[in-house]
Amino acid sequence: MRYALKVAYDGTEYCGWQLQPNGMTVQQRMQEALLSMTGEKIAVVASGRTDSGVHAKGQVCAFDCEKKISPRSFVTGLNFLLPDDIAVLECAEAPADFDPVRAAKRKTYVYRMFEASVRNPFEDRYSALIRPGADIEKMARCGKMFEGVHDFSAYCAAKSSAETFEREIYDVSVSAYPHLNGRMIEISVTGNGFLYKMVRTISGTMLYYSLGKIGDEEVSLSLSTGERRYVGKTMPPRGLTLERVEYERDPFSK
Amino acid sequence: MRYALKVAYDGTEYCGWQLQPNGMTVQQRMQEALLSMTGEKIAVVASGRTDSGVHAKGQVCAFDCEKKISPRSFVTGLNFLLPDDIAVLECAEAPADFDPVRAAKRKTYVYRMFEASVRNPFEDRYSALIRPGADIEKMARCGKMFEGVHDFSAYCAAKSSAETFEREIYDVSVSAYPHLNGRMIEISVTGNGFLYKMVRTISGTMLYYSLGKIGDEEVSLSLSTGERRYVGKTMPPRGLTLERVEYERDPFSK
Repeated sequence: MRYALKVAYDGTEYCGWQLQPNGMTVQQRMQEALLSMTGEKIAVVASGRTDSGVHAKGQVCAFDCEKKISPRSFVTGLNFLLPDDIAVLECAEAPADFDPVRAAKRKTYVYRMFEASVRNPFEDRYSALIRPGADIEKMARCGKMFEGVHDFSAYCAAKSSAETFEREIYDVSVSAYPHLNGRMIEISVTGNGFLYKMVRTISGTMLYYSLGKIGDEEVSLSLSTGERRYVGKTMPPRGLTLERVEYERDPFSK
Repeated sequence: MRYALKVAYDGTEYCGWQLQPNGMTVQQRMQEALLSMTGEKIAVVASGRTDSGVHAKGQVCAFDCEKKISPRSFVTGLNFLLPDDIAVLECAEAPADFDPVRAAKRKTYVYRMFEASVRNPFEDRYSALIRPGADIEKMARCGKMFEGVHDFSAYCAAKSSAETFEREIYDVSVSAYPHLNGRMIEISVTGNGFLYKMVRTISGTMLYYSLGKIGDEEVSLSLSTGERRYVGKTMPPRGLTLERVEYERDPFSK
C-alpha cells in the first residue's frame, strides 16, 4: 500500500531533508519512526529536498508499506515516535503510482525577514534579522520581475546538479506587519520548481533592490546573462519555510 | 549608575529567571554577560521570577554599575554576549532608587493554548496543545470571575513562600484565531501581582470550565474557600509568557 504524508518540521537542528552520511536529517528521523512502527525498512520520498536549517509547514512525501495500516494510525503512531520538531499533519492512502516529486504542480516558499534594530529570541529560529530601512513597495516591484519563465542560473548555488535552469515563477508577493520589537516582512514565492538556494537568493536580491543597492538593470541582467555578480546576497536558511506543495489532485482531499 | 533593562527570553532551556544551585537560569546568563562586559560583579534584579520553561517578551530588570556606560552600548554589548535565546530590547538610565519589583504597578501574562488534533513543531515551544472543543465564550465568562480582589490561595502551588494570597486582577481576556493546523487561544491576564503558578492554574480552570468539567459554583468556591479541589489543572509552563510590566513612570520613556 502506498501512503502520502503532509509533514511539518522546524529545520533548525537538521542537515536538511535528505539522508546524509554525517549529520541528522528529517528523512532519517521519518524512516526511523516508520521502521519502529511497522518493522519494515521503508524509504520515504519527499516533494523536494529542503536545505540544512530550512523549515517546512507542508512538505509532502510518500512511501510504500506492506502492512495495511490506517492513515489515522500513522498520524498518531508517527507523531508519538517522532521528535518534537517534526510532526505528521496528515496521512492518506495514495495511488500506487503517486510520485510526490513529478506530480507536484506548484510549490510555495515563504522567506521571513525580521526588521528590527535589536534581535528578538522569539524570531531567532524562524527569520533573518535585517536592519530597519527596507522599502516594501520597491521590494514588491522587484519581486514582479521574477514572475514568468526565466533562466535562473544566476540564482542557483554552484554545487547544484540541476540539468536545466529554466523555471516558471507564478507569483511573488510581499507583506509586512508590526511584530514584537520590529516589523515582519514575508516574501511568498510560488513556482513550478526551484533551484538550490534560489528562493534565498531571490529574497536577498529583493532586499538589495529595496535598499537601492541594485536597480532594474542589474535584475534584468541577472536573468538575461545568468551571472551571479548582478544578484543580491543569499539569505540565511533560518528564514525559509516550504509552505505548501500543490498537486493536480490533492492527495489529502477526502 | 543605575540602569533598567527590558529583556526578552525563550525560557525553554532555562530553569527560570532566578539563580539556582543546579541548572542554568536567565539571571545567571545576564550576570555573566554583565561581568564580561564591565569587569564588575553585578547583581541583576527582575520585576519578578518566571518559572522554569516560562518565556518573557518584556521582563524588566535593574542593576548598578560603577562604570559610566551608555544605555546604547549596553544594548549592543549585551546582545553580542548573550546567547540567542535571551535579548536586551531596551536599556535606560534609572533613578538610584528604582526598584523593579516594588515599583511594578501592573503585570500582564499571556497563556497560549494551541487547539489542534495534531501537534505542530512550530508551536511546540510556545504553547500547550489542547484537543479541539474549547468554547471561547465560556472561557471568557469564566475569566471575568477572577477580576477584582480575591484570595487566590486555591491557585497557588504548595511550595510558595508568599505572605499574603490576596491579589487584584484588573483584566482577563480571551482571543482566538486560526493558526497553522488548528486554532490559537490566547488568555491575557493583567494584575498587580501573581502567586506561584497562579496564571497557569487560572488558565487551566478556564479551560476546564469551557469544557464543562467545572461550573460557576466550583469557581466561586475556589475563591471563597481557597481549596484546590475546585480548580482545573495547572497548565504546562511552555504556554506562558510574561508579556509586559508597567510602572507608574515608564523607565524606558524618553
